[in-house]
Order: sequence, then structure tokens, then C-alpha cells
Amino acid sequence: MQHIHYIRVRYSETDAMGTYYNSRALEWFECGRTELCRATGRPYTQWEADGVSLPLIEAHVEYLGKAQYDDLLKITVTAEMAGRVRMRFDVTIEQAESAQPVCRGYTIHAITDNTGKPIRPPEWLMELFDND
Amino acid sequence: MQHIHYIRVRYSETDAMGTYYNSRALEWFECGRTELCRATGRPYTQWEADGVSLPLIEAHVEYLGKAQYDDLLKITVTAEMAGRVRMRFDVTIEQAESAQPVCRGYTIHAITDNTGKPIRPPEWLMELFDND
Amino acid sequence: MQHIHYIRVRYSETDAMGTYYNSRALEWFECGRTELCRATGRPYTQWEADGVSLPLIEAHVEYLGKAQYDDLLKITVTAEMAGRVRMRFDVTIEQAESAQPVCRGYTIHAITDNTGKPIRPPEWLMELFDND
Amino acid sequence: MQHIHYIRVRYSETDAMGTYYNSRALEWFECGRTELCRATGRPYTQWEADGVSLPLIEAHVEYLGKAQYDDLLKITVTAEMAGRVRMRFDVTIEQAESAQPVCRGYTIHAITDNTGKPIRPPEWLMELFDND
Repeated sequence: MQHIHYIRVRYSETDAMGTYYNSRALEWFECGRTELCRATGRPYTQWEADGVSLPLIEAHVEYLGKAQYDDLLKITVTAEMAGRVRMRFDVTIEQAESAQPVCRGYTIHAITDNTGKPIRPPEWLMELFDND
Repeated sequence: MQHIHYIRVRYSETDAMGTYYNSRALEWFECGRTELCRATGRPYTQWEADGVSLPLIEAHVEYLGKAQYDDLLKITVTAEMAGRVRMRFDVTIEQAESAQPVCRGYTIHAITDNTGKPIRPPEWLMELFDND
Repeated sequence: MQHIHYIRVRYSETDAMGTYYNSRALEWFECGRTELCRATGRPYTQWEADGVSLPLIEAHVEYLGKAQYDDLLKITVTAEMAGRVRMRFDVTIEQAESAQPVCRGYTIHAITDNTGKPIRPPEWLMELFDND
Repeated sequence: MQHIHYIRVRYSETDAMGTYYNSRALEWFECGRTELCRATGRPYTQWEADGVSLPLIEAHVEYLGKAQYDDLLKITVTAEMAGRVRMRFDVTIEQAESAQPVCRGYTIHAITDNTGKPIRPPEWLMELFDND
């Protein structure tokens, strides 16, 4: 399951080094996950309404290039099960026009109820993201 | 009731213009409110545990000068009742060493229960902040 | 000059009170200004390339209602000259579907060169935003 | 070279899941790096004034536990050279009172001049951080 989404760098996301501040990568990863879920027909708000949460347990980012205010970025996200009880989202962000790389990485998520207790992934989730 | 607190500008709070991004002022105002509450002997976490919340209904900021990464800022906060059902915090932020002004402003807060329903201010709150 | 833009509330913009954190309003105001400038045919990056900056000197926000993760928000921005040397942007943010108000406010900006020194507004800026 | 620093979770750093938003970990890592540099007697602002920057090239976070508004967090940072041209900071964040783990991870940084061009680490940097 792959999805592409575009965002513009906000002024609030820049820093004094003349590029985006490093933690914004994780916020953009989240935008990518959100839009991937929406594209499945079941937005993440619906997951939470159905009692399923995806708290992060691990995140990794490689910083590959600059991104400045108002640059248009292309976020490509791939989602899949990571074993039987976790999900993994791989993300690549690049400059939309030049295809210059900006950053890439992944996040790994537990699958829990709304109180944070691990649950077995529901059927619909397995159908959407289990590639095996 | 007045309180003084010091913070350092984080790299994440700077922007490409070479100063702090404008919305950080409101985050620093919050730091000032938090420390003022702690100084009364009743931290804001205790307010919430006692069923009292202070959602913002209004905020105002005047931007007066630059602040760069790692600058030490002095936050001066004054708290008082604004009428019978609201609180007002006035904040001044300046460079700790040079006393150069950075910004100043205020926030006005409703007094509600934890669901957002307005309540009459509890006795202890009136005693702390009612100057009349 | 008025412009309408839509954004989704990010998870990173929520807080433990179950709504958006108050400083996000100023970041959304910025998104509105950015898109209004783009709609004039002269994006704000072009302003900066032409040696014109708009540092904030004042911001005001009234908080009117909740906004939660993934809510679609409608940002309406109006821009105009405020006297001969300042610009003012008025912003209203509401829930796109229900039209429930979220917040409204304004920002006032100096017109400076890229070093922060006040300048006379260039001809093109007056033509775009001077209503008199 | 190890350093310990304490921070309080800000309301702006919480999210609707009732813990800190995941990207804040990277902002707290930065606070830890900043204070470690200061503790060496050469604050990072001095590095930049001396023409040395440390842009991130990689970041990794493991999320281990919750942290809520106003929790006091203990940030432990270790810095060392990673090969001849990179630096690595390892960070552990835990609840200051209970020692419950919050997150841990690392960042890897290039050593560049202020324009982002890689440079040989200056003598003083090697003396501070080269353990071999």
C-alpha cells in the first residue's frame, strides 16, 4: 500500500540554519500516514473511533537535503505489517519539482486500543496492510 | 501576583528570518503561566486534578525585538482576575542580559471544569488572584 | 484582497485538552497569508527575493471553538495596508463542514528590507493592497 | 563526555493521545546537546561563531513510555566522534522522579562550515570528544 501526498514547507518549520528544523520530518511523516489512511477509505479518525490506536515505538530519519520556506515537497509513504502485531510506515520526502532528496525514514507502531493496551490487529487492518 | 522565569531559546524555535518564529511567544507565555502557578504552591496540574481548567479565549502579542538560538530570556508574568469569571495573564519577555525587549502581551482565560463548562472560580483561586 | 484556503489539523497540533494547542492559530494564520500572497501571482518567496520582508509587530487571536485531529478547517484571510508603512491581515478560521467558528484574529506587519530596516512599500505592493 | 539536564514537559508538547507528541523527542535531544556543549565551556553558539556547524544526518528514537504536561524529565546525553568526520550524541530521557523510561535514541551529525561544506574537525573539538 503506497500513497503520495504534497505539502508546502511552512515558515514555522524553518530554522536559523536556512533549512527545515529536523523534528519537522517526523511531523511530515505523520501527514503522509494520515493521507495514506484516508486513501484506503478508512481515515485514521475512524481507526480511533473503532478503538484502534497506532502509538509510535520507533522512528528513524536520514537527512538528505535542504528544504526552505514554501518549497513544495512530495511525500511517498508505504505501509505494511511488521510481524503480526506492529505496523511499519516507510517515508521518502523529496523536492516536488527537482526530485532532490530531502529526507527518508520509517516509523514503527504498536497496535493498541485507545488506552494503549496491545490488541490483535482487526481483520480490516490485516486485509489492508498484510502483504503475505 | 507576579513571577519571573528564565528560558533559553531552542534551535527549534528559531526561523529562517534569524529570530524566533512568532508563535513561540505564545508557548513562552505558557511557560511563564506554568511557573507562576507552581510558585503559588498549587501547580497547574493540581488545578486540573481539582477539576479546574483555564482554556484561552484571547491572546495578544506585540513583537518588540529579536531573540536568537540560546539567548537567555527573562519572562515576567502577572496574573489577576478579569471580572468574576475570567483570568488574565500579562507577560513581558526581554533579553536577560541586555534587558532589550523581545515581546509582550497577554492572554485571557475562561475558568471551566475539565469538560470546558464555565464554573464559578473556587475559593482558593479567588484568594490567590483577586486583587479587589 | 481576500483569499480562502483549507488545511487539516495535524496530530502534532493537538494537545492534551482535546483541541488544538493555542499557538497553532498563529501558524495557521501564516498558512493563510502565504496562500493569499501566492493567489496574487507574487508568492511571498518572491517578495523576499525582491528585498521585501513582513516581520510581525502585533498579533491578536480570539479562540472561539474546538478543532481536533484531521478536522478540515477553512481559513479566510483579508489583506490591506494599515497606514502607509504597515500591512494588516485579518483571519477567520472555521470548521469547513459545520461552519462552527474555531478562531479569528489579525496580524500587523512592518514592511522592511531583508535586514529588518523599514522601507517605503514598493509600487506593486501598494497596487495589490491599498484600498484607498 | 556525558551531561545531564532537566526539562519540564510543556503543554504545547502534549497531544490528544495524552502523552508527548513524538517529534518533541528530537527537540528535547537538541536541548540535551545544547546543554552538553555549554558544559564543556564552549557553548554551541561559540561553535557557530568559530565557523563550525553540526547539521543532522541521521536521527533515531525509541519510544518507551509516557510523559505528560509538567512532568520533570531527566535528559542524559553522551557525545563522541563517530569516525573522523562525524559526531554522535546518544540520549536517554526518563521521568526524573520515578526513573520510568520515556525515550532514547541518537543523532549523527556532519561537521561543516557555516555554509554546510564538510570540514576537518578543529583541534578543540577532537580534544573534547575523541575518546580514542
